[in-house]
Amino acid sequence: MSELTGPVEVVGAGLVGTSIALALTRAGIEVLLSDRSDDHLRTASGLGAGRPVAAGDRPQLVVVAVPPDALGAVIRDALERTDAVVTDVGSVKSRPLAAVAELPGVERYVGSHPMAGSERSGPLAASAALFDGRPWAITPHGSSDPDAVALVEELATRCGATPVRLSPADHDRAVAHTSHVPHLLASLAAGQLLGAPRDHLDLSGQGVRDVTRVAAGDPGLYGQIVSSNAEQVLTLLIDVRERLDGVIVALDRGDRDRLDEVLRDGVAGTRAIPGKHGGPARPSTSVWVSVPDHPGELARLFADAGASGVNIEDVHIDHDPGRETGLVELVVEADRAEHLLTSLESRSWVTHR
Amino acid sequence: MSELTGPVEVVGAGLVGTSIALALTRAGIEVLLSDRSDDHLRTASGLGAGRPVAAGDRPQLVVVAVPPDALGAVIRDALERTDAVVTDVGSVKSRPLAAVAELPGVERYVGSHPMAGSERSGPLAASAALFDGRPWAITPHGSSDPDAVALVEELATRCGATPVRLSPADHDRAVAHTSHVPHLLASLAAGQLLGAPRDHLDLSGQGVRDVTRVAAGDPGLYGQIVSSNAEQVLTLLIDVRERLDGVIVALDRGDRDRLDEVLRDGVAGTRAIPGKHGGPARPSTSVWVSVPDHPGELARLFADAGASGVNIEDVHIDHDPGRETGLVELVVEADRAEHLLTSLESRSWVTHR
Repeated sequence: MSELTGPVEVVGAGLVGTSIALALTRAGIEVLLSDRSDDHLRTASGLGAGRPVAAGDRPQLVVVAVPPDALGAVIRDALERTDAVVTDVGSVKSRPLAAVAELPGVERYVGSHPMAGSERSGPLAASAALFDGRPWAITPHGSSDPDAVALVEELATRCGATPVRLSPADHDRAVAHTSHVPHLLASLAAGQLLGAPRDHLDLSGQGVRDVTRVAAGDPGLYGQIVSSNAEQVLTLLIDVRERLDGVIVALDRGDRDRLDEVLRDGVAGTRAIPGKHGGPARPSTSVWVSVPDHPGELARLFADAGASGVNIEDVHIDHDPGRETGLVELVVEADRAEHLLTSLESRSWVTHR
Repeated sequence: MSELTGPVEVVGAGLVGTSIALALTRAGIEVLLSDRSDDHLRTASGLGAGRPVAAGDRPQLVVVAVPPDALGAVIRDALERTDAVVTDVGSVKSRPLAAVAELPGVERYVGSHPMAGSERSGPLAASAALFDGRPWAITPHGSSDPDAVALVEELATRCGATPVRLSPADHDRAVAHTSHVPHLLASLAAGQLLGAPRDHLDLSGQGVRDVTRVAAGDPGLYGQIVSSNAEQVLTLLIDVRERLDGVIVALDRGDRDRLDEVLRDGVAGTRAIPGKHGGPARPSTSVWVSVPDHPGELARLFADAGASGVNIEDVHIDHDPGRETGLVELVVEADRAEHLLTSLESRSWVTHR
């Protein structure tokens, strides 16, 4: 059994590389750094991410965190100059694998991809907490040594992430859906703002800021990423174009049904994204409470429900003018209902179980 | 001169109506509520947003906060049954104006639109703070009484928002750019997720969540909004489709330049959005600091710069191995440079002014 004891060499002290180095340092593992840019290397060292690699260093694991176009060459170099396990953290997995698949030592290579980043770049934007609770794709190939796979999975967990194992091809299909196509649509949403008079953009709210945030990312980097995954991205974009055509026709003809279909699919799509903590969206249930029919009681109920820490998703009030109490239905996540009931009962509310 | 003293009648106790009612109540203004749904009305009252409107009430201002398809009829009703100033807070302004433009009393009508919302809906999602610091479009028509315009502007400021005056047509062009087209692209980004195997969505990171967040909004409501502004939205969508075609051709041919153009326009678009506090993006400047060339000093500098509360946007290190100190360039917002210099000097750093 392998165990990650270090040292770990991180090649590329940008946002992701420096964040990995900081996370490993936090975990007590020695980190060796290298970067073509002296600024990046010194900044990362200065931030406490590790020390510059030196002659004679023998890393247990090399993490290649360089832009997509450089991945193949840098992974190859790491396999040749060390006997370490080698992973890369590039956003596309089939292409770098193809570049090294025939090399001696390729059994020591296991691709990976932490699903965390930022529209900012460079070591100054790095954070030891960047990967906490995030998925980290682990993409072994047919000849990957199982011990090497285990070591890269341990890298992910020591950085605070949750490893998710996928084939390189499945990974690339997945990120076309979850990252590359959303990024391109964000770029289109942001780009069309340039056609508006400057003072019209004063009406920008939080919505457009959220939709376009990722489009602020380094265009050189994203050009490389999307191009490296062109085949998967193209398949999806052609489908998106068809649906966009449908919206255009629907608006032109006043066909509300066809527009609603796209909007409803959008709602379903947001619900298909797993919950922040990796689980699926939770089912809801109802909690029933009797509420005296005089002013202030409903406000008191909402305040007490709020104090319980349970998020109220919806409410219905069954009010019969002939009675002195109403029955209030609070809709909450199913696994929070018991806590809400107990909490309300402790504050003297009459609940209906 | 008019002054907003109340009472204000809010018609429609959904997310926006209840939030306005809560904000006005917070400001000490009496609020009268009405809604077709008893649940909504009781929930809003229970939250402390106001009391249900009663016969004999004479509001100073009526705020119509109902779905777009109902706006014309409800504004007309408010003009006919009261002598109050009437505004609506609908997301599109030309169409409701057209519905009431010929009515007697139309000089008392001034459209408006707070640029704040949520992918959630209903009174339970409401907040008195929803409009704090947000723009609120005020869209007088040719016959609007100036006192009525001033009263609606005061509504916006009393709710914590910043009034932005625009013609109804300019407003509708502006929100096509800043709201409706981004929403539709978010819906397309979310909808294409439905084509992915469920476990592939485990790779969803913060990016796709942000891009798609608004697409979770009520499809019935957004169908009405986008349809009400079909002409403006169509013009922009046809341009977006052309650019999407360009991306597809670029990916198909491996034409990196054409892809980069769309990505670069996206970056420029995100920069065109005014800063959160309404101002334009700030210019940057450099602060120079001498740093002794031994371990730990750079980390100490970053820690001290961080303690100053000034965000370091970039760093360059001018390191001459023959000297015992290096010169570090910290790039910061221009109007924060003086504070950073003073702060570093107070911690004994040698700066270069």
